[in-house]
Amino acid sequence: MTKSIITIGRQYGSGGREIGEKLAKELGIPFYDKELLTIAAKKSGIAEEFFESNDEKPTSSLLYSIVTGNYGGDSLPFNHKLFLAQFDAIRSIAKKGPCVIIGRCADYALEDYDNVVNVFIHADLDVRVKRAIKEYNIENVKVAEQVSKIDKKRAHYYNFYSGRKWGSLENYDLTVDSGILGIDNTVELIKKFVELKDSLRK
Amino acid sequence: MTKSIITIGRQYGSGGREIGEKLAKELGIPFYDKELLTIAAKKSGIAEEFFESNDEKPTSSLLYSIVTGNYGGDSLPFNHKLFLAQFDAIRSIAKKGPCVIIGRCADYALEDYDNVVNVFIHADLDVRVKRAIKEYNIENVKVAEQVSKIDKKRAHYYNFYSGRKWGSLENYDLTVDSGILGIDNTVELIKKFVELKDSLRK
Repeated sequence: MTKSIITIGRQYGSGGREIGEKLAKELGIPFYDKELLTIAAKKSGIAEEFFESNDEKPTSSLLYSIVTGNYGGDSLPFNHKLFLAQFDAIRSIAKKGPCVIIGRCADYALEDYDNVVNVFIHADLDVRVKRAIKEYNIENVKVAEQVSKIDKKRAHYYNFYSGRKWGSLENYDLTVDSGILGIDNTVELIKKFVELKDSLRK
Repeated sequence: MTKSIITIGRQYGSGGREIGEKLAKELGIPFYDKELLTIAAKKSGIAEEFFESNDEKPTSSLLYSIVTGNYGGDSLPFNHKLFLAQFDAIRSIAKKGPCVIIGRCADYALEDYDNVVNVFIHADLDVRVKRAIKEYNIENVKVAEQVSKIDKKRAHYYNFYSGRKWGSLENYDLTVDSGILGIDNTVELIKKFVELKDSLRK
């Protein structure tokens, strides 16, 4: 079995989630995407719907802070609390052993772990638009705009909390254009990377 | 045998040249790094030393143009001529069949070829500094500065002629941190990518 924790950042519509899910299945290790929000909610006591409605979205903490009574004083803005709860959830998951984690600054949260493989999946916009229409039933009208908008939010979230640049290759051990190989072959390639890295630790 | 042409962009000290050379050997296909300059010189009739002294350096065409008498009139700046001669050399090489080409905007020159795999090799600065000291006998003093300076030139050259951004992941099918896997395992990984891509064409 692998010894690695694989984090997967991904452009919207690139198939990153499906690739991660298949990879986890093939490696026989747990997979965390939205599951992470449930764990963060349980651990923090904050209602899960707050994690869902703020998932990988840039901070817009003022309104939430007022609503939740956390405005002023020395308390943290509410979105920061959500981020920290997810950060803790990622680290507690990582302590349990190898797994695949999608998005949510997991590469940043685990930067002091040496058994982490950081991957980023991208694809040309036309490939992602087609996939978004097919997989997520997004309406054909303005779908390219929608895809770019979601990526902008992911980038903003990542950059704000990690202080790094989303989709900048120096943050990743491996980046792959899933539009070239397709989903299953991209899974194969990442598996190969993980095998090669694992072999260095023997 | 593979059907692919593999272009390799690389940060200085990341081992991109060595990786490309080993990859070409394993795949049994020709390898072009400085060899490209000799071909461009032969085809264009411009002396090889001009290609060498301007290799992947940003345009500073005014002085050369004056020296070589190409300043003014409707003639192209001299550096543009060197670029175009290399561009032609890359395309004539590609027509002959599968090969590995290092740097020199080869991904851009071959953008209309569908059997091209575009790879970028990077590594952390400390890894590259160590490699530069060991492989290229660059003096220990200010070596980090020197490594960054060469990368800046490569970026400037690539960006100027291709209108793209050097080291920006959307230009590449695959990017790998060679500091994680080491040279030989990075070769293995690229070989796997090429195999997977070739299998889609069968």
